[in-house]
Amino acid sequence: MNNDSKTMEKIVALCKSRGFVFPGSEIYGGLANSWDYGPLGVELKNNVKRAWWKKFVQENPYNVGLDSAILMNPEVWVASGHVATFNDPLIDCKACKMRHRADKLVEAYNAEQGIDDVNVEAMDGEALVSYIREKQIPCPGCGKSDFTDIRKFNLMFKTHQGVTEDTANEVYLRPETAQGIFVNFPAIARTTRRKLPFGVCQIGKSFRNEITPGNFIFRIREFEQMELEFFCKPDTDLEWFSYWRSYCHQWLKDLGVREENLRLRDHEKEELSFYSKATTDFEYKFPFGWGELWGVADRTNYDLKQHQEHSGQDLTYFDQEKNERYIPYVIEPSLGADRMTLAFLVEAYDEEVVDPEKNDSRVVMHFHPALAPFKAAVLPLSKKLGEKAQEIQRELSKYYMVDYDDTGSIGKRYRREDEIGTPYCITVDFQTVGDEKTPADHCVTVRDRDTMEQVRLPIDKLKAYLDEKLTY
Amino acid sequence: MNNDSKTMEKIVALCKSRGFVFPGSEIYGGLANSWDYGPLGVELKNNVKRAWWKKFVQENPYNVGLDSAILMNPEVWVASGHVATFNDPLIDCKACKMRHRADKLVEAYNAEQGIDDVNVEAMDGEALVSYIREKQIPCPGCGKSDFTDIRKFNLMFKTHQGVTEDTANEVYLRPETAQGIFVNFPAIARTTRRKLPFGVCQIGKSFRNEITPGNFIFRIREFEQMELEFFCKPDTDLEWFSYWRSYCHQWLKDLGVREENLRLRDHEKEELSFYSKATTDFEYKFPFGWGELWGVADRTNYDLKQHQEHSGQDLTYFDQEKNERYIPYVIEPSLGADRMTLAFLVEAYDEEVVDPEKNDSRVVMHFHPALAPFKAAVLPLSKKLGEKAQEIQRELSKYYMVDYDDTGSIGKRYRREDEIGTPYCITVDFQTVGDEKTPADHCVTVRDRDTMEQVRLPIDKLKAYLDEKLTY
Repeated sequence: MNNDSKTMEKIVALCKSRGFVFPGSEIYGGLANSWDYGPLGVELKNNVKRAWWKKFVQENPYNVGLDSAILMNPEVWVASGHVATFNDPLIDCKACKMRHRADKLVEAYNAEQGIDDVNVEAMDGEALVSYIREKQIPCPGCGKSDFTDIRKFNLMFKTHQGVTEDTANEVYLRPETAQGIFVNFPAIARTTRRKLPFGVCQIGKSFRNEITPGNFIFRIREFEQMELEFFCKPDTDLEWFSYWRSYCHQWLKDLGVREENLRLRDHEKEELSFYSKATTDFEYKFPFGWGELWGVADRTNYDLKQHQEHSGQDLTYFDQEKNERYIPYVIEPSLGADRMTLAFLVEAYDEEVVDPEKNDSRVVMHFHPALAPFKAAVLPLSKKLGEKAQEIQRELSKYYMVDYDDTGSIGKRYRREDEIGTPYCITVDFQTVGDEKTPADHCVTVRDRDTMEQVRLPIDKLKAYLDEKLTY
Repeated sequence: MNNDSKTMEKIVALCKSRGFVFPGSEIYGGLANSWDYGPLGVELKNNVKRAWWKKFVQENPYNVGLDSAILMNPEVWVASGHVATFNDPLIDCKACKMRHRADKLVEAYNAEQGIDDVNVEAMDGEALVSYIREKQIPCPGCGKSDFTDIRKFNLMFKTHQGVTEDTANEVYLRPETAQGIFVNFPAIARTTRRKLPFGVCQIGKSFRNEITPGNFIFRIREFEQMELEFFCKPDTDLEWFSYWRSYCHQWLKDLGVREENLRLRDHEKEELSFYSKATTDFEYKFPFGWGELWGVADRTNYDLKQHQEHSGQDLTYFDQEKNERYIPYVIEPSLGADRMTLAFLVEAYDEEVVDPEKNDSRVVMHFHPALAPFKAAVLPLSKKLGEKAQEIQRELSKYYMVDYDDTGSIGKRYRREDEIGTPYCITVDFQTVGDEKTPADHCVTVRDRDTMEQVRLPIDKLKAYLDEKLTY
């Protein structure tokens, strides 16, 4: 099934009904665009995070990990530019008072009119206002075109730490995990005794007070990032940019993302941030259209230079070979764990006709085994086989998440496991345990989710069989 | 080395110098009591969380996982009682204007005076004030005893979601992960088709605007919790309370926490929250004294009842066997991941005399292998052996975190690995690879961190050897 024929409606419905993702605070009518990961969702998302950590920290010879705090000294966000420039351009309709994001208004208008030669991302507030006035873009609420000037709305969530709610105690919820890495650069370089190049990986929550969140878990206000800041010598940055661009691409392919659903969009010169030498957006073909998944950027030495200036601390690196000091250059591959999880859900989703004559079809999630919430499910053919089946489940649970289901027909149970993407179903039958007439064969039937083929295996060979299949 | 002779000073120094824990936002002079987990700290803390998830979710037949959002509908905190009662009792000295927590003032005074028959936790604001006045407790700042009345200070961090900073948009950073579980109870029961008893586990950040945080990562404003809410039938709660009390105790012992450093304190009747039938605090002997680690509480049906009343949703469970509906009872084992990590750091810390004659001693972290940041380190005896050594490190890194060190004498490298708790050091020497005269033996030397004993092993037996040792 290709992505063009998948709908968000079906994927969201499956997520809710099977316990991948629930609306947040649902019994209280929710909280705008907040989502909770249910029993299967938390396993899937944890597996996504683990697969990233495994390839980017554990197996990569250059990188180490970090887990820095969400609440940081507010000066960090002055240095990073977030206090001054992390804004959405808001505009109000004078006629009906509806509030809009000016850039989204222009984008929607251009899409409708078939205008595709205007780079909206490169337009500042003034350019947006004059474009809206020139084109007489109408308010989607009332149809008139009479707007206020643009008001900049900072996207950082603010709170107060300490006993008084005054400005001195104002702190922000971090809008990105990257700055936690930059400010720890000297401590990490010192304590790990690493030489350049080396990278620092971090997974953690970030918060952005988005005006228009949406598309399920694609754009949410509270989201999780998986970021790498890779520090290298100034003249080697483009080489490393290319290394990480390929590395990220390979990671996606290894985990089953098909090329047809991926687009690597290299930024044009005028689209680049002023400090960036090269940027590639990895876009994924979601049912609602192409959406940004991963941004890989050559950020030059911009971030460390800013922090050195604002903190007054020396953030240079002493290069023993060259016998000189300099501020390292940085390559940043930045990925959202939630939208990555959504992309894996979309990629895995499939509807298959199993037997056209019997009108038999199934919904199956073809997750890579490393991502599947359950690696296997143990299914006793009869409740009488529960003891043996539970013994097998208990033993395998020491190594992986293993489901157990003894309700309904075996066919129904296969369908249920298909729908949550369990790669292997292990059926325990009467032959497994034997009876007065037939001796036990101590074997079980293992069914493959994707091929639906079955093999008979001795119980004591199960772990080795699964280990090999699940290797990632 | 027993805990009485360990000091926080030494443990904090080791954490900073080896990259376990750094002060947050350090280059900007920090942010009061915020801490970042460095390259080793993030591995240690992740291993603590994984060990908990493994025993409480993966291997436990009753429990499933959840990852709910930090920002919730504010009504949740009205229902839970946090808006009304999650306060610290603050009191100001009229003379010198110094601000104090009234309960801490009383506790400190009683400790100094040797008064140990007063239960400060059970005192409300009025009781605290009259006790302070009666005893004429002096201000620690100026020595006078002239205080204001108590002002209640709510410990929840507040922020605003959406474009305007008005009350309608006010939301809180959750002060505990528990409520995310309660509000998802119906969705989880429905989608997992679980019958009582079953439990829901969650790991995640919580935030409390503590007036007096301190003791390194023991009490911090932004912290991570590992909570289980276990739902059971009303007449079975005390039985399950006892089950989870033992289960938690066993988890600590399995991971190497010694009985001498643990105290299980059962709450007296008058100390119990009004809704609780039984509570046990697991306390750990930190260098600064006994501190609460794990709270196991029988919360009866209090939480679900509150949410049912406030949300107007039906949170009852239909018991098919009994053919009746009721609100489940709840057992809550609640553990802080940061203070648990601190306890494991303290527990592991050791100073040993290796050879009294040579004045040779070492600092060694005796982490359980499941918790150690690196499971092994590959150490080539000479840089010339780098190729072989890196090959071994690369292969083992597919399965675990493996360190690599080719700098300094082998003795120094052993000491460095001891200090970060690496359980196995793998030394590659010239025999491993051979030369013109001697054929390669394709073996390495594996040194045990705790016994310092060494064994010679074929390279292709390494993984099986480590797997067995690392099983948890």
